[in-house]
This record gives sequence, C-alpha cells and structure tokens, in this order.
Amino acid sequence: MTAFEPQTDDYAARVRESYDRQTAMVTLGAELTAIGPGTVEIVLPFRADLCQQHGFIHAGIITAIADSACGYAAYSLMPADAGVLTVEFKVNFLHPAAGERLIARGMVSRAGRTISVCAADIFAVSGDSEKVVATMLATVMTIQGREGVRG
Amino acid sequence: MTAFEPQTDDYAARVRESYDRQTAMVTLGAELTAIGPGTVEIVLPFRADLCQQHGFIHAGIITAIADSACGYAAYSLMPADAGVLTVEFKVNFLHPAAGERLIARGMVSRAGRTISVCAADIFAVSGDSEKVVATMLATVMTIQGREGVRG
Amino acid sequence: MTAFEPQTDDYAARVRESYDRQTAMVTLGAELTAIGPGTVEIVLPFRADLCQQHGFIHAGIITAIADSACGYAAYSLMPADAGVLTVEFKVNFLHPAAGERLIARGMVSRAGRTISVCAADIFAVSGDSEKVVATMLATVMTIQGREGVRG
Amino acid sequence: MTAFEPQTDDYAARVRESYDRQTAMVTLGAELTAIGPGTVEIVLPFRADLCQQHGFIHAGIITAIADSACGYAAYSLMPADAGVLTVEFKVNFLHPAAGERLIARGMVSRAGRTISVCAADIFAVSGDSEKVVATMLATVMTIQGREGVRG
Repeated sequence: MTAFEPQTDDYAARVRESYDRQTAMVTLGAELTAIGPGTVEIVLPFRADLCQQHGFIHAGIITAIADSACGYAAYSLMPADAGVLTVEFKVNFLHPAAGERLIARGMVSRAGRTISVCAADIFAVSGDSEKVVATMLATVMTIQGREGVRG
Repeated sequence: MTAFEPQTDDYAARVRESYDRQTAMVTLGAELTAIGPGTVEIVLPFRADLCQQHGFIHAGIITAIADSACGYAAYSLMPADAGVLTVEFKVNFLHPAAGERLIARGMVSRAGRTISVCAADIFAVSGDSEKVVATMLATVMTIQGREGVRG
Repeated sequence: MTAFEPQTDDYAARVRESYDRQTAMVTLGAELTAIGPGTVEIVLPFRADLCQQHGFIHAGIITAIADSACGYAAYSLMPADAGVLTVEFKVNFLHPAAGERLIARGMVSRAGRTISVCAADIFAVSGDSEKVVATMLATVMTIQGREGVRG
Repeated sequence: MTAFEPQTDDYAARVRESYDRQTAMVTLGAELTAIGPGTVEIVLPFRADLCQQHGFIHAGIITAIADSACGYAAYSLMPADAGVLTVEFKVNFLHPAAGERLIARGMVSRAGRTISVCAADIFAVSGDSEKVVATMLATVMTIQGREGVRG
C-alpha cells in the first residue's frame, strides 16, 4: 500500500461529518472506527435482523459497509469542495458472514483527479479470531461543482 | 431473454418461503412482488433512513434488493433440495436513487448445474416515470448436500 | 435499449479511424463489422493460435474484442475532440468459446458526460447457430483536453 | 497473503505443462516466469502490434496475461485430475500500460473445493521502475470428471 498525502488538514473531520449524514449506516448500526489518509474502517455488530435466509449477514449489508469504507477512503484524499460518488463495485463473497461483528477496511489503490480505485476487505470477528469473508474492488468518482453533491 | 423451465412445480412457493427468512429484507421494508421461472421482482419503498450523505438510497441498500432479486431468480430454477449462495456480483450506478420506490428486476442469463449468471436492473419510480439507476451482473451458486444451506 | 443521438455526423468514420489504429485488433484478426449510434459489432474468426489449454478461445482474447466493442460504442456518442479510455470491466464466461467465429456486440447503457456504462454480449457462431459465450459490463471514460489521448 | 499447501508435489510442472498448451500466450509472446503454491507470474514484453489506439498495450491483452496468472495460481493448488476454468473477472485500469514489459502477478485469495478467488496486479516495467497499471479480481472454478477439461 502506498502512503497518500491528504489535500486537507481536516480530512478526518470531513469524512466523519459526511459519514454522519449517511442515515443507512445509523439504521444498520454501523460505526466509523478509524480514519487515515486513504483508509477507513467501519464496524457492524452482528444483528439477527440483517440476515439472509441461512442466518448469515446479507450480502447487501456487507456491501453497504464496504462501499462506505471505500468511498470515504477515497474522500479522505479529495479537495475540500469535493463530493464523492460510487461509480461501481464488485464484491466476492469468500465465506459466510457469521460472528460477533463485521469489520470493513477500505483503502485507496489509486487516487486520481476524477477516478479513484479502492479495495476493501471485510472480516468477521469472533472472540480473538478474524476471518476475511468478502472483498470489494470499487471505482469512486470525485465530483466538483455539482449542486447538492458535497461530502 | 431465454424462457426457462423450472425443475419444481412449487418454485414460486419455495422462493417465497426462503425470501421470508431473509430478515434483512424485512428490516429494509423490501417486498417480493413477482416471481417467474428465472425472474424475480423486489420493491423497496423510499425511506429517509436508508440513505447516503446526499439523501439518495445508499448503494449498499440498492445492492441488497438487487442481490436478493438475482439470487431468487436463480433459485427459482434449482432442484427442490438445493440452497443458493451468491459467489460475487458487480454493480454499476447510473443515476442517483431518488423517487418513491425502487424496483429490482432480476433474471437468469445462464442457469448452470453449479454456477448461474444473473442480471438485475434497478429502477427508481416517481409517479408514472421509471428510470434505471443501477445494473447488477451476478454469479450465483447452487449448493447441494451441505448442512444448513437450504433455500 | 434506448436510442442515442450522436453528437457528430461522422461518428462512424471517427470510430473506424480510431479502431484502425488498434494494432492489437489487426494482430488478432478482428474486424469492425457494424457501427451505430451507441452500438458496435466486432467479429473474430476462430484461430487455433488464440486458445487456452482446452482449445477454446482464451478469455483474454474474448475480452479484447468485447472491450473494443464497448469502448467504441461509447466513443460513437462522444464529442469530436474526445478520447476514450476503459476505466474497468467485468466479464462472465458462460460457455466455452468454440465455433467458426466470435461476434462481440457492444452497446451503451448510459452515456454520461464523463462516465459511460456499456454492455457487450459475445457470441460463438457455428453455421446457422449463435450462442452467447460471455457477457461484459464496462465503465468507459470520456477524455478531453489530455495530450495524446484522442480517438 | 496466506501460505497455501499444494495438493500435488509436481504442481509447478502441471502448471507449466498446461500453460504451454495456451497457444494465445505463445502468440502474444508471454512467458511464465515464476510458479509458487498459489502464485504465478507472467511477463509480456512490449510489442507495438498489441496496442490500442493511443499506443498503449490493449486492455484485452493486459487481461489475457492477468487471467492466465490468476487461473494458474488457482490451478497450482488443485488436485492432479482437475481442470481449471475462469468463471468471471473484473479488471480496473489504473494507468496507461507503457514500458518495456508487463508483469502479471496472480495469487490465490481463497482456495475452495469448487470456487477459488484470485487477485492479480499488473505492472509496467521501464528500466528499474515498476508501476501498477491494472488490477484483477477473478473467480476460478475447479472442474473434475468433465471430458476434455483437464489442466
């Protein structure tokens, strides 16, 4: 992983301020637990009401925290007046998402002026053990000068 | 779209029974509105508590209903004792997901013995107008003879 | 499929001129056989020297013609001074690529100012029969004002 | 990266034997330069006849060596009687592929009985400098007992 230089001093505050406006994260009970330049970590405690038919966390819910982790990893490196949008992502599901909580760790692979590429691994945690359950590769866009798209 | 022949007479009932065990769909307020051989439709009424930072439905939530639509489209063509698992998917986001409700329409492109490939388009509906906001291409697996994986 | 309005009268000539500079297409023996506003078709006659280990056309070669079909489908709708770059794509392989020739049919799903989304289906042709062997979902970028990136 | 235990002593010989049957790799001039348990490296010297319209190596050609690197990384961990097939992949293109040669480094992320997930980074090399130009995330399948699919 390359070390990235943020363009703003308050990148962490900007990420947190935008994250706090994601009502979906509140509804799912997901918490933003770490912010670095080009990296973000989000934790989702296991909830029985977020499952698919076999009692594992639903693929879409796993994807939700991975998408926010990737998007904010990219956003942490953007200029102050920018907004962030997800262009697309792909997720591979490696193991059933069971355990006490999920951790999505997103990081920037390439920070471009318009297009950034990010990756996230999603881990299921049970006691001391951490197991990767999914992996995301995402394309994220920097938006500037568009009404209503900031943060 | 090819016409598919289901392997079971009660495919629609099997899809519905499995869907009803997806607690995430209940939590999100998503409804299974149509089932055909190789096709499934899921509707999600807009909710302000499922949004990203700009007030549009969160990409992960869009993905959740698209994943269920693809998975159950594939499941409708599987044998009676099978279970369905998502191997991976990719989603492109075309327009912001605003409107009164989202509709995810999943359909099977290829139904294999082990691997099926499905596509879903996700539409935002406002009054009479329907606009595609995202598109998914997914790989789904038929599981047989594995403990705890049925439906 | 939506009907698209090209921004230039000579879109077909522009596509062909750029395609003719793709030396990889010449090396593979791929031909540009149809151009419409937002659609492109490329044909690759079967060659035993483009195969993987089981004697089917290599996934990368299938991808090469699908990528050119998607990229030029998007390019056909771009302004006269633009260049086209592939941001990313995903390809699902549905059946082994055997037959007399492959046909990649690319079309635009969404034509944006910066980002376009395209899809391609790739067919294997044997006599009168045509069978889809792969499907691509691609993200393509319009480049303007960058030195050396035109066409 | 996890360390993987190969199931056969001659995994490297099996990989090489199968690779040598990929006529596409010969045609492109790609060489298999390293084989480990769950890892494969392939080198493609730059050739002006494998380019897209701006003189960079064509996305499909980059994909071809990345696909072979991923497929053989997975194959190195498979049982002796198995065959390997690519189910799907996604590739993000990060920088133009210019330089003296490309190196694709594939590695297994998850080795399953039926489904393996692999990643590859593709680097452009100029003199002493190496730059990542693309990244692949792939799903690969182990085939057993199917006529004509071995290696």
